[in-house]
Amino acid sequence: MLVRSITEVKQDQVETEGASGVKIRWLISADEGAPNFAMREFEIEPGGHTPYHSHDWEHEVFVLSGEGTAVSEGKEHPIKKGMVVFVPGREMHNFKNTGSETLRFLCLVPHKKD
Amino acid sequence: MLVRSITEVKQDQVETEGASGVKIRWLISADEGAPNFAMREFEIEPGGHTPYHSHDWEHEVFVLSGEGTAVSEGKEHPIKKGMVVFVPGREMHNFKNTGSETLRFLCLVPHKKD
Repeated sequence: MLVRSITEVKQDQVETEGASGVKIRWLISADEGAPNFAMREFEIEPGGHTPYHSHDWEHEVFVLSGEGTAVSEGKEHPIKKGMVVFVPGREMHNFKNTGSETLRFLCLVPHKKD
Repeated sequence: MLVRSITEVKQDQVETEGASGVKIRWLISADEGAPNFAMREFEIEPGGHTPYHSHDWEHEVFVLSGEGTAVSEGKEHPIKKGMVVFVPGREMHNFKNTGSETLRFLCLVPHKKD
């Protein structure tokens, strides 16, 4: 069993093209022995956003704090603390912070298959 | 994209033998089209606990509120809001609420293979 605080986990700036003001922590990943999927925490600063893109894999998201918008195929859904978002694979999407505080959420993804 | 508040999701009492004062919400599951893994939210009342057991699959846990103990092979680890727990498959474990408020956490599991 691995038990730790998220603050013990290294936080990295997301440098992907189309990302603005986004940081990530890989809380549980293959490095910790997770066999199937990874838990990441994202922080998006006010006005920031993740890239608007699609990919083969799904997202399972839980909003921890802040307010923002989940965009899907151009349609905007308001999100805030205690909301859940499921993004199926191959759907265009991103997340924007439309509030005045940091938007924080968990985003889980399956491990990439070789 | 599915977007909803956890309060919109039906909450059930966990009736498994060895569980006491435990409720579950299946936030994202195969029913919502998730292909690989499921997100559940657990609430444990003060003094309550999940069954002490093991199984083949892993748990990826994020503590949302409250205080408690994650037990692994008889060893107790304190947990509280903002902590992450990875429980590998085949490890004896449970979660106990040792505080005075409800212990709430997310616990994600891979879908069962047929």
